[in-house]
Amino acid sequence: MSSNTESGAAPLGHVRIVLVGTTHPGNIGATARAMKVMGLSALHLVAPARFPCAEATARAAGADDILARANVHTHLEEALSGVRTVYGTTARERHIDWPAQSPREAAAAIAADGEDVAIVFGRERSGLTNEELDRCQRAIHIPTSATFRSLNLAQAVQICAYELRLAHAAGAPAAVREGRDPPAAAAELEGLRAHTLAVMEAVGYYDPAQPKLLERRLQRLFNRAGLLHSESQILRGFLAAIEQRMSRDD
Amino acid sequence: MSSNTESGAAPLGHVRIVLVGTTHPGNIGATARAMKVMGLSALHLVAPARFPCAEATARAAGADDILARANVHTHLEEALSGVRTVYGTTARERHIDWPAQSPREAAAAIAADGEDVAIVFGRERSGLTNEELDRCQRAIHIPTSATFRSLNLAQAVQICAYELRLAHAAGAPAAVREGRDPPAAAAELEGLRAHTLAVMEAVGYYDPAQPKLLERRLQRLFNRAGLLHSESQILRGFLAAIEQRMSRDD
Repeated sequence: MSSNTESGAAPLGHVRIVLVGTTHPGNIGATARAMKVMGLSALHLVAPARFPCAEATARAAGADDILARANVHTHLEEALSGVRTVYGTTARERHIDWPAQSPREAAAAIAADGEDVAIVFGRERSGLTNEELDRCQRAIHIPTSATFRSLNLAQAVQICAYELRLAHAAGAPAAVREGRDPPAAAAELEGLRAHTLAVMEAVGYYDPAQPKLLERRLQRLFNRAGLLHSESQILRGFLAAIEQRMSRDD
Repeated sequence: MSSNTESGAAPLGHVRIVLVGTTHPGNIGATARAMKVMGLSALHLVAPARFPCAEATARAAGADDILARANVHTHLEEALSGVRTVYGTTARERHIDWPAQSPREAAAAIAADGEDVAIVFGRERSGLTNEELDRCQRAIHIPTSATFRSLNLAQAVQICAYELRLAHAAGAPAAVREGRDPPAAAAELEGLRAHTLAVMEAVGYYDPAQPKLLERRLQRLFNRAGLLHSESQILRGFLAAIEQRMSRDD
């Protein structure tokens, strides 16, 4: 029995994250954490400036198992061995005349496909070279501000990993909702509305010229509020207490 | 002419990022960068452990203008001044029995709305306290692996900022909001809650052994209900009428 899988096989086990020429070991650690928190686990490093490194381990903050299992390569080609489709990330919206996909589009395709893929991230300052991008069949561009495009490497990985997790989850059966405190039923809401109006009348609150308007507004409010059964009961109890207090005074 | 806007008014200028009790200044800097790269600019810090700090500036990597303009507060309440809707981020999918929104759902609502909002992020280790979450009308939960939920603070901000940017881009000609009946402001909701409790006490409705529970349930109900300004006024009028009726009897 594998202990770190969530439901049988690792859900995103076919996705490999490849970092090329990373300068700051902190970014490698933060990338491992960004991956693990979204359920990714396969990290490949191509010619990192420093690795292993205490700074990477510190920033991994519990994802050091991913660092320990990371594959370190000299050339990009080695990191892509056995991979069916290679996605390269780029700060440009178009690579030559080849439009880039959004992380969301890419994640949808990757989750649906299930074939081994690599997502390749370039150097902190200069990204991937043209030669490296040429090795990719697809490009991913993460949209940014037009005036400040400096997205941190691990943040770029985080966004892609997040989209992969959502795309994977979208294909899974929706979580069963626990029914401990169910929403108020229609009849309950109607009872609450009638009771509220009765008390409003008893305390002399409403414009007798426009009873219809107040009634409709109350109905809209209760319908929209998404009251739970327990909340409807609290409000009914409150209304009953008001009536009781008034009858005591009479 | 403003120089840091992209097309006239800042597109996400109504969104305030609030960090509560941040321990590591590096996370404050990384948050500033995460914001700026997606076009956000308003950063509020509540009781940061260290700020300003060279480590924050280093990690901001060019987003130091956001740090320079950051507002530092002693209490959360100050950071929310003037805000219409407060979103709190939580590692739990449900806050008691109140379902959290995904970053995507929240971003869509925020982009379409255009009212001033705050998104509040808690401490690195412990998140937001229950009292702080109670101050929020909506909760945001970022989906993570079930077995490793340790999402870095700046990464959480990055994901939300990314979704806001996409939602803003998608909603370009955002639905024009009829300004006739705006949502109730946070201060209005707080006034309504206090008034309701006062009347509940006056009519002898609540379990004196569990005042806290009722208080929190009411706050949650009002937060979730999405009350309009006019509805808040109706309910306040109703409460005042009850009080008047009781004073007449005394």
